[in-house]
Amino acid sequence: MPSSVFSLRAAVISAATVVGRKEHEGPLGAHFDFFSQSDRFGQATWEGAEAEMQRMALSAALGKLDMQPKDVQLLFAGDLQNQCVGSAYGLLSYDIPYFGLYGACSTCAESLLLAAAMISAGFTETAAAVTSSHNAVAERQFRFPVEYGGQRPPTGQWTVTGAGGFILRQAEASIYPPMAYVTAGMPGMVLDAGINDANNMGAAMAPSAADTLLRYFKESETSAEDYDLIVTGDLGWEGGSILCDLMNSEGYPIETNYQDCGRLIFSKNTQDTHGGGSGCGCSAVVLGSYLLPRLMRGKIKKMLFMATGALMSPDSLKQGNAIPGVGHLLCLESPCH
Amino acid sequence: MPSSVFSLRAAVISAATVVGRKEHEGPLGAHFDFFSQSDRFGQATWEGAEAEMQRMALSAALGKLDMQPKDVQLLFAGDLQNQCVGSAYGLLSYDIPYFGLYGACSTCAESLLLAAAMISAGFTETAAAVTSSHNAVAERQFRFPVEYGGQRPPTGQWTVTGAGGFILRQAEASIYPPMAYVTAGMPGMVLDAGINDANNMGAAMAPSAADTLLRYFKESETSAEDYDLIVTGDLGWEGGSILCDLMNSEGYPIETNYQDCGRLIFSKNTQDTHGGGSGCGCSAVVLGSYLLPRLMRGKIKKMLFMATGALMSPDSLKQGNAIPGVGHLLCLESPCH
Repeated sequence: MPSSVFSLRAAVISAATVVGRKEHEGPLGAHFDFFSQSDRFGQATWEGAEAEMQRMALSAALGKLDMQPKDVQLLFAGDLQNQCVGSAYGLLSYDIPYFGLYGACSTCAESLLLAAAMISAGFTETAAAVTSSHNAVAERQFRFPVEYGGQRPPTGQWTVTGAGGFILRQAEASIYPPMAYVTAGMPGMVLDAGINDANNMGAAMAPSAADTLLRYFKESETSAEDYDLIVTGDLGWEGGSILCDLMNSEGYPIETNYQDCGRLIFSKNTQDTHGGGSGCGCSAVVLGSYLLPRLMRGKIKKMLFMATGALMSPDSLKQGNAIPGVGHLLCLESPCH
Repeated sequence: MPSSVFSLRAAVISAATVVGRKEHEGPLGAHFDFFSQSDRFGQATWEGAEAEMQRMALSAALGKLDMQPKDVQLLFAGDLQNQCVGSAYGLLSYDIPYFGLYGACSTCAESLLLAAAMISAGFTETAAAVTSSHNAVAERQFRFPVEYGGQRPPTGQWTVTGAGGFILRQAEASIYPPMAYVTAGMPGMVLDAGINDANNMGAAMAPSAADTLLRYFKESETSAEDYDLIVTGDLGWEGGSILCDLMNSEGYPIETNYQDCGRLIFSKNTQDTHGGGSGCGCSAVVLGSYLLPRLMRGKIKKMLFMATGALMSPDSLKQGNAIPGVGHLLCLESPCH
């Protein structure tokens, strides 16, 4: 039986990131390619702004390599909006065959995993992955419009306004210098840990992150020591601690080289985001702007990137369901040896 | 450059279908595996009913082969509910690595295409694809609750209450008799034809169906004559006519062997569904219950199956956006020569 670890071989050759004002003001602010002072990106609606961010992210990722949309044969994309319309409208102007994904905040890893798999299998030479979230869109869709001024508990996370666009290509065929190689991947299972508090997504997603990471360590016969960094997408302060505890209890400690994109993107002390960043865009922009360049320069040699998603809807919570989570994992390696 | 036609090799070895009362009363009623007289499937909510239908569809598809969930290594699933929770909750009890998809009504073809691709590439031996829609869920989410009794125009389509579960396996490795082989696939591009009438989805989706089909004919150097059947997912009466007109105008007539799952599932004269069936579940249950058995018995030797999706949300329509469409295509061949 094939292992559920996929052996992959694809190069990430470009990444571009687009963020809102708060993300620009955060510790990684200088790394992002574009930001909008008003978070509106010149659009009439927040939803339109998110779509525009996706368009910009892919356009910039292509532009950095002087590539045209016709040079890309497959597009994997998703976001948090109902029916994933951020991606559908945002990427409408690109005539690239399109696979729409919904993995909630795991979508960045899901899209990169499938793009890398299709490239590794030879179905395509070049593929793109685009993911986004927008704070004002997510707040009014999942909780309350921001104008309402609802108070958030300490475990509540702050949906990142951000979009990341990535271009992947066959490692051998690439005339472009790679930022990193995707060398392995593992899709996650949907798990329900019984959490039903929409203001504690980290707790809802941590068990699925632990499940995927444990399965990966066991099947690949590795442990945290084999990686310079193990980074999750948006478990934040609360969920990240739970993940570390769960991994400790299983005998696979990860604390010493663990990070989370939702912790990296905002200043804990000055930005008042409570539990840290979240949303599809969180892991996408931290990976695209900060982690991939570090891989490219060899500051990170080998890392595990695992984005987790909370697969609930506002209606499913009102109907009394808990919040199931899913975590998809990628192994990324530096081109510098 | 690789063609955008994927050369695939995977066997569909099992399919199971679950429908509501109206579908059971339609012309294909006797072909479905399960139906619920109340459309509730013993659940407290319509949304819960749809999730239960997904669970039943996969359970029955596995059960027909005496397979266990552990025999399946990958699961591709999606539905129309916000954040695709029909799939997330419905398939929660299966510990199978899960890729969530959103392709609106194209999801059945999208899931089969990706499952067949991952099998063809050797990433997995066995994969499952599950898709659903539920009339009462879709009506209240996209239009009005059914209790409101809103009148529908003649082009309005009837969302099918149905779920289809499919098991695919490496063609060579299969100890199970194949129902059909997936031999090729082509992902669609997102196209906006400017239609913004949510009661005329067929018109919104027909141009994307024509685009995929034309690209497929040209790249594979085939035409309608090379197939016993060309079947779309849910263009219905209106959209199907538009597709035939568009194909005629491009010099690739398809009328003589064209069908649409949304036309097949309901009686035009007696079931009062106006434009025909629609929804992710429409193409899934017609393929699973009616088309695959005909392929298995050699009544159909070779067919193109193309499900189209309308990638809008209720909010995006209220904000003045048109309805973009996408159409994914599969070539299915009979095991009987």
